[in-house]
Amino acid sequence: MSLAPYKQLELEWKRLHALRGALSLLRWDAAVMMPRGSAAGRGEQLAALETECHAVLTSPKVSRLLERAAAGQGGLDEWELANLREMRRQRDHAFAVPVSLISRLARATAQAESVWHEARRQNRFELFAPNLEEVLVLVRDKAALLGQALALDSYDALIDEWSPGVTTVLIDTLTKAYARRLPSLVREAIDVQAAAPVLPLEGKFTPGRQRALVTDVLRAIGFPFDRGRLDEASHAFTEGFSGDIRITMRIDARDPFVGLLGALHEAGHALYDLGLPAHWLDQPVGQARGMALEESQSLLIEMLIGRSRPFVRYLRPLLEKHFGVAGAAWSDDNLYRVLTRVARGPVRVDADELTYPLHVILRTDLERRLLDGRLAVRHLRDAWNADLRQRLGVEPTDDAQGVLQDAHWAGAAFGYFPLYMVGAAIAAQLHEGLRRDVPDLDAEIERGNFQGLIGWLRSGVHGQGARLPLQDLVRDATGRPLSAAAALRHLERKYLDRESAPLADAAGATA
Amino acid sequence: MSLAPYKQLELEWKRLHALRGALSLLRWDAAVMMPRGSAAGRGEQLAALETECHAVLTSPKVSRLLERAAAGQGGLDEWELANLREMRRQRDHAFAVPVSLISRLARATAQAESVWHEARRQNRFELFAPNLEEVLVLVRDKAALLGQALALDSYDALIDEWSPGVTTVLIDTLTKAYARRLPSLVREAIDVQAAAPVLPLEGKFTPGRQRALVTDVLRAIGFPFDRGRLDEASHAFTEGFSGDIRITMRIDARDPFVGLLGALHEAGHALYDLGLPAHWLDQPVGQARGMALEESQSLLIEMLIGRSRPFVRYLRPLLEKHFGVAGAAWSDDNLYRVLTRVARGPVRVDADELTYPLHVILRTDLERRLLDGRLAVRHLRDAWNADLRQRLGVEPTDDAQGVLQDAHWAGAAFGYFPLYMVGAAIAAQLHEGLRRDVPDLDAEIERGNFQGLIGWLRSGVHGQGARLPLQDLVRDATGRPLSAAAALRHLERKYLDRESAPLADAAGATA
Repeated sequence: MSLAPYKQLELEWKRLHALRGALSLLRWDAAVMMPRGSAAGRGEQLAALETECHAVLTSPKVSRLLERAAAGQGGLDEWELANLREMRRQRDHAFAVPVSLISRLARATAQAESVWHEARRQNRFELFAPNLEEVLVLVRDKAALLGQALALDSYDALIDEWSPGVTTVLIDTLTKAYARRLPSLVREAIDVQAAAPVLPLEGKFTPGRQRALVTDVLRAIGFPFDRGRLDEASHAFTEGFSGDIRITMRIDARDPFVGLLGALHEAGHALYDLGLPAHWLDQPVGQARGMALEESQSLLIEMLIGRSRPFVRYLRPLLEKHFGVAGAAWSDDNLYRVLTRVARGPVRVDADELTYPLHVILRTDLERRLLDGRLAVRHLRDAWNADLRQRLGVEPTDDAQGVLQDAHWAGAAFGYFPLYMVGAAIAAQLHEGLRRDVPDLDAEIERGNFQGLIGWLRSGVHGQGARLPLQDLVRDATGRPLSAAAALRHLERKYLDRESAPLADAAGATA
Repeated sequence: MSLAPYKQLELEWKRLHALRGALSLLRWDAAVMMPRGSAAGRGEQLAALETECHAVLTSPKVSRLLERAAAGQGGLDEWELANLREMRRQRDHAFAVPVSLISRLARATAQAESVWHEARRQNRFELFAPNLEEVLVLVRDKAALLGQALALDSYDALIDEWSPGVTTVLIDTLTKAYARRLPSLVREAIDVQAAAPVLPLEGKFTPGRQRALVTDVLRAIGFPFDRGRLDEASHAFTEGFSGDIRITMRIDARDPFVGLLGALHEAGHALYDLGLPAHWLDQPVGQARGMALEESQSLLIEMLIGRSRPFVRYLRPLLEKHFGVAGAAWSDDNLYRVLTRVARGPVRVDADELTYPLHVILRTDLERRLLDGRLAVRHLRDAWNADLRQRLGVEPTDDAQGVLQDAHWAGAAFGYFPLYMVGAAIAAQLHEGLRRDVPDLDAEIERGNFQGLIGWLRSGVHGQGARLPLQDLVRDATGRPLSAAAALRHLERKYLDRESAPLADAAGATA
């Protein structure tokens, strides 16, 4: 007796999951372990596995099985139906873009990323501009093809690849809400903070001590070192899947919080992956619900938990233990001030919680203008600098700290920037839900007990996998439609150090 | 215009090379980096990639292209013809054994290896015997199918998978030559050495110092750290390919030579892979000529170079530098005596150069009797102990140090043991060729200059890839047919500390 079509599809995706796991390890190794001279061979390996994944998704067998499973879907339960929907989604994406365009994009981005590194080193946008132009042309083609196949506007089609359920409409609504309040909020916060100066943190933050501190914190938060790793890399990232999840930290010997907060950010991603429904581990419905929700999990842990008063009270004794520090600079109050300092600066990854969305809005606006032709690549630097002046009131010191600071566009990751903003909005909204449902949250965190936090996220977010569309998931978990309201309430309360208006979705609710 | 069939085949194997490179990295990571709890997921990844390789080799497309390329092979040069021959060989092997048997073997060996670990821990062969029986039945089936497809005797068919060109006839000839001389040679060597007792080596051999020493030596010998890695693992091994070659060392804090000699052994493998013809990197003809030749390269570097007087003179200052040692125990003479000490013992991996072949002959004989049914698994321990007593005059202290000491049979690696003996014979014969063609070899090595050594191996062995059948390659490189003669001359000269008879192939030459 042969298997039912749906069950055969599960086997195809089980194989895809294994191939993608191998891809993930190849990428992790390339960033953490691989000798510098081995890049060419690794490129061939990645291309071979990506080609194989694409071949599975576009095989006549899979399309035939999807048709037959759809015809007989009466016998499937809710999770299986959602799984089938996600399978179709992956198949549709794979079919929409021809292999020839994928490989042209792969070559163009490999080249662009290499030139971007060099241009940044030399501080010269002109060097990078022709490569960006080439990538942009190909991304436009891809967006048009994807949009046609998925019946979406072209920018929405690009976003859909990263994070289905996030649309231009949602982004515009959130942007409007943020843009209305944030600039004045930044001014007010800087005024409030001027009254409470920060004492500088001094000590010996050796890599070994930082690793030991981060290991303690990760253990407390539930990172499973028997099914995961923590390593150092030139940037912090997460690779792998819930059976073998690997995070990295970037260590800065002058600032112990670069490594710790980066690791907390990645731990947010890792905990999401670890909490995905185990039964669906190797199926599409068992994967994360997209990058906006991924970013919400990392921001929740890094920004809303990691930069909170209860967490500081938990952390202070660990800082004493690992760095042997004490005194006024290491008091709870000063540590909290350090972790929540607001300052206008030109660089996104150095930005605080309050100015960060402005950096993202700037990039989202610029990339949309680049894509639809309103902005030419040769004018990008000027536009960047003008926008930065207008939105944040600062000038980049040079191209490296300005238009060349992010790798996203060189890597063809158009449509990704707005997800940071959506993620921040979701994170704050989840945090409100958490505080409502876990009344002892602050006291637990202060004691280093993260079980209430993680348990709530597991049941409401992680354990849902990709069962629901994003906005349904957020509404189910928080009781409210996704909006910027919670984020703005949170920022007001935290940075003006006063209770904001009672909970109400005044600021830009979306349907 | 479509590509010629032969060129299309090259593209198929280019993809296979990438998939095999990914497999190699997955294995390396599993042994060196992977968290313990991640084995199940890794197993799925390995299986998915192995299935994919098998699917490429057995695809109708590849068989059709092989036929068409064979029909039009008039236009191919010598390397291309050899490449085509090796492609056919891989295809024939893949076709000979059905996927169902391969996956039954994969499951049976995974189980057997796990039980073998536990049985060794408990020192109880009985625990392992049923699993060995199961593996043996499957290996017999595989040997029969392979033999039928390749027109070889079944043991020869198993060997052919590891090392084409090595046959039962060759093994029997070498075994006879070794067995005739070795037992008396061991007795005489022990007598000679009794007159020169060894001073024990004492010092602080921290892992950091051992790593630094090994790194110095590997750099001198030409290991490229920009295209390779050295790591620690519970056993020494080599993975990767010439663009990204990774060796491991096992560190024993009491004995600095365990790590160093293990690393030299692996460096022999790595240098072989690094010297393979670059133009054919991703093609079958650009791969190593099989495991007997692989083992000859590691034994040449570890045993014939690493345990020689010139190498000791090169090494002594490095030992002083890294371990801060001096005195009579660290004299050239005593170090050489330590590195060449002969002692009868029950364990193969602890054996010296002289008794080692006897361990291999014992296993080869036992596995052949197991395969053809002359020996039952339930009598294996008794047979092992009796053979060990007869060949080496020692008793194993227990099963763990006796019949359970090697992982090969649990992993279905029947037909592998004799390759160590063939490798030792080839190594000695190559060494004679080397000394003939590089007259300053000893002086160069003493100065830490390994270019003459590596250059000779590159042109005669490494750079040949799989162009020639094994025995042709050895004859071309050394001017003599492959035999045990050079090995026995070498052992006599080295362990009886006297010049042997003038060069002549008296002892067991093969055609």
